[in-house]
Parts: sequence; C-alpha cells; structure tokens
Amino acid sequence: MSVDSTTFVFSDVERTNGAFVTDRRSLEVVRERIVDAIRTSVADAGADGVVVAMSGGLDSTLTAALAVEAVGNENVLGLGLPCHKTDGAHVSDARTLAEGLGIDYEAIQLRPLLEAFEGTVADELDPESDERERPDERTHEVGNAVARLRMVTAYYAANSQSRLVLGTANRSERLLGYFTKYGDGGADAYPIGDCYKTEVRALAKHVGLPRRIISKEPTAGFWATQTDAGELGARYEVIDPLLYRLVDAEYSLEEAIADLRIDRETAREIASLHADSEHKRTTPPTPGIDR
Amino acid sequence: MSVDSTTFVFSDVERTNGAFVTDRRSLEVVRERIVDAIRTSVADAGADGVVVAMSGGLDSTLTAALAVEAVGNENVLGLGLPCHKTDGAHVSDARTLAEGLGIDYEAIQLRPLLEAFEGTVADELDPESDERERPDERTHEVGNAVARLRMVTAYYAANSQSRLVLGTANRSERLLGYFTKYGDGGADAYPIGDCYKTEVRALAKHVGLPRRIISKEPTAGFWATQTDAGELGARYEVIDPLLYRLVDAEYSLEEAIADLRIDRETAREIASLHADSEHKRTTPPTPGIDR
Repeated sequence: MSVDSTTFVFSDVERTNGAFVTDRRSLEVVRERIVDAIRTSVADAGADGVVVAMSGGLDSTLTAALAVEAVGNENVLGLGLPCHKTDGAHVSDARTLAEGLGIDYEAIQLRPLLEAFEGTVADELDPESDERERPDERTHEVGNAVARLRMVTAYYAANSQSRLVLGTANRSERLLGYFTKYGDGGADAYPIGDCYKTEVRALAKHVGLPRRIISKEPTAGFWATQTDAGELGARYEVIDPLLYRLVDAEYSLEEAIADLRIDRETAREIASLHADSEHKRTTPPTPGIDR
Repeated sequence: MSVDSTTFVFSDVERTNGAFVTDRRSLEVVRERIVDAIRTSVADAGADGVVVAMSGGLDSTLTAALAVEAVGNENVLGLGLPCHKTDGAHVSDARTLAEGLGIDYEAIQLRPLLEAFEGTVADELDPESDERERPDERTHEVGNAVARLRMVTAYYAANSQSRLVLGTANRSERLLGYFTKYGDGGADAYPIGDCYKTEVRALAKHVGLPRRIISKEPTAGFWATQTDAGELGARYEVIDPLLYRLVDAEYSLEEAIADLRIDRETAREIASLHADSEHKRTTPPTPGIDR
C-alpha cells in the first residue's frame, strides 16, 4: 500500500502483524481524514460547534479529542449524562478528560427524567416491568429508553447552541447493530464510524489518550456488570477480523470460519447480529411507489 | 397510464384534473401497495404487530387504518401522547378514531415527563429559555424535545410488546424535512412516506376516513396556533406540485416557477427547505475511509 495515499487499507498491515491498522503513518492518515470530516460537517451545516455525550469510555473520549482538533476546544461541548448509581465513576472520568481537552463540560443527572418516564410511561405501558427487574440490573427496554433520553438531551443542547451532535459509534458496533436505534445511534455524524473497535484503540493510543481509558473494558452501561464481550459472546479481537472478512472482504461464513479457525457457533451468532441489524443502518423504508 | 400496472403515475392524472392521484383505481393500487409493505415489514422483523402514535390528525389516522388492513386490528396499538393543554381535543379525536378501527388505544399524558425534562435538562443547558417563551407558545427546541419524547415512548411500547413503530411522515414532509429528526421521524417504516400530502387526502377519502379528519388543517402541534401552511409559507396545494417538479420530474427551479406561475420567493424557500434537509433523509455520514 502507498502510505501517501489517503486510502485506508489495513489488509496488508493485518497480514504482517495480526492486527488492524496500527502503523503510525496509516493511523495519521485516518486521524486527518476524521478531523477533516468533522470540520466539513460543521461548516456545511453552518453550525457553531459540536456536542459529544461523554461516558468516560474510549469511543466518546476519542471522538471529543478529534473534534477538538477539528473545530477547536472552545467549540466542543462535552455532556456527562449519568443515570444509574454506577455511572458516578464514569462521569468523574469524563469530567477529567474534558478538562484535559480544555472543553466545556456539563454533567446532567438523568435519574429524575428516567423516574418520570417510568412513572408516566413505563408503568402504563408495561405494568409488570418493576417486578421483572432486579434492582441492580436494568432491562434492555429501560436501557434503550435511557439511551434515547440521552439523545433527546444531547439534541436539546445542540439545538439551543446551534451545534451538531457527534455520534460515537465505531464500525464494529455499527455492523453489529450494537447501539440503540434513535438513542446513541441518533446523531448528525459518526466520526469514528469507519474504524473497528480494535482500530479505535490503536488510534486512541496514536493520538495520545490516557492508557487507562484505552484499556477500559467496553460496555454499553445498561447495567453494572454488563460488558460488550459478555453480550456479544466474543471479544472485539475475535469479532473484528470476522466482520472484516464477512463485510469488507465478502467471504462466505464458511470461508471466514476456516480462515480464522474460530468457533462455528460464535461466528454464526456474530453473522446473525450483522444480518438482523440492517434496519439500524438504513433510513426507514417506504413502500416504494414508483412515479 | 395502465391502471392494471402497480406503477403509481400521477402526471397524467394531474394533467386532467389539476390534482395528484385521485382516480379510484390508482388509489386502490397505492392502498394495496402500502398494506402489503406494512405486512411484509412486520413479518420480516418477526414482530407481533405495530405501534402508531395517533395525534387525531390525518396522517396518523390513515397510517393506523392501513395498518389494521395489513395486520388486523388486534395487532395495532394506537398511542395518544398529549403534552400541551391544546392537545386534549386531538386526543379525544384519536380515541374515537381508534375505537372506530377497533384497535387498542392508550393515552399517556407526557406533561410530567416534559416537566421533568425542563427541570433537569433544559434549565441546566439553556437557563434563559423560560423567559424567552410565551406561555402559550412553545419554542422549536422544546417542540423538538416533545417530538423526541414521543418517540422514546412509542419505542418503549414497541419494545415491551415486540412491535414495530410505524412513522406517519408523508412525502411532502419528508422532502421538506418538516419533521423532527429522531422524533416523529424516528420509526421503523414510513407507510405513507411515498404519498404527497394532497395524495394522502385523496387516499384517506378513498379508504373512507371521516371527512372531518380529512379536512383538518395540517399542523405539527408545537403550539396552539401553528399550522404547516403558516410555517412553510404555502399550502400543500402549492408545495406538492412544486416538489413534484423539482424532485420527481427534475425541473430546474426556474422551469418549475415558469410552469406553475407561482411566487418566486415562495418557490425559492420551498426549494431551500428541501435542499437543506438532506441530512434528515440519510443515515449519519462517516468520514468515508476506504478499505
């Protein structure tokens, strides 16, 4: 591959070192492309800056850091949107990271909003939900509602201040549909949306994010003990090479399994997650009436 | 045009009577296509039915009626989601219409949820908003937040009961971006999304909806005196033929103005609404890093 080209090709790199893009020159190309895309999005929209919901995790921290490079720290607003008791540590991390980036940061406790939602909406629509839930564990329904309430909040901030909402989904999450439709998936652009999670780690290291953030266990934060690996049935080190083969290199499932020598059942489940989440990667369909 | 074909061509009809599709046989084709699309969406998703947020207006009533044809009245849930004082009459209409369709209907008062949102989120992010607003008039920011809270509610109902959320946006609204991104725009399918508003009226008449609903003044309901015509600067009888020429027939703006002999400034504004709302009709962009 030509490192001078802006084309991001990782297959050669993968062949040499068993990981995705990790060499500095390729990572620098990716970084510049993302920064340029953020800057262009803001300019094209005539917006005054961006809003990033910061969880204290890797994806949102990297997105905020690249946004600062794109539009300047004074034009990036970080939002901490805690809702559960266990979110305290993450919000504290997010605040520290925002300070490090020199951006404005607002922490808004969403618990009262969720309680109002549960009192007015959830109880009427799903009266048994209280009994089903263990106090330390949120159901997916409520988790999705919280992700959507975060979106409503981020958009209110963005609308009030004429900013864009930057989404923090990476390519692994997008291809798996591992995000809430119209929740964390609800954004005006996905700056790191082309990067697999394993590449996000390399890029975060390249731009100098704190090691502690880079090595955090990925979680959607729906409940305290949730991890992406636990829910998805595999770690991103296994998922990403499989998704790359199925989606980018167009291998059949059998070819990918043979190539990677991974567990067949795990591979099937990952492939199903991808196939079944097409509706999260497209605009809602219309019947298709020709004119 | 061949009325036996399932192709929905309205230009010939328009030439004869100055309106869009209005002949019974073409309308019947459109109706069947929409019903079939709803049925297919539900089956493909393995869902148990659909949720429709019903405002008492034309679009949501027609969507619910066609959903009943598609999946049966027992599989359609209508939601009334009033938030402002002026919503009372609409909810009452929605309930009556739902009873007429024989579907389950739940009215959920969103006022407490909006108050919690204003108390926890809006006050922190935009402290002056209270002073800016007249009590009888909601700002667009709050209106958008309410539209998004309705989406959160509809999806909670859908998730709890394994249903799809049907959006009620028509083609005029979609082409103008006249809906809230991730609010009323947040849905799993847009059954009437290919029909211009003027065609929605014809279709509603064709399927036998009450005349009073068909002749209601279109409004997004953000505040009491809001009307689509007031906000958009023209009525759909003017907007739809213009959009048809610009988008479907690919006329230049000048050609469309000459053809329709409409006010130049109005035409420009409508064309701008279309051009500037592209981001509402596409998935959020990624930087586009090639692999």
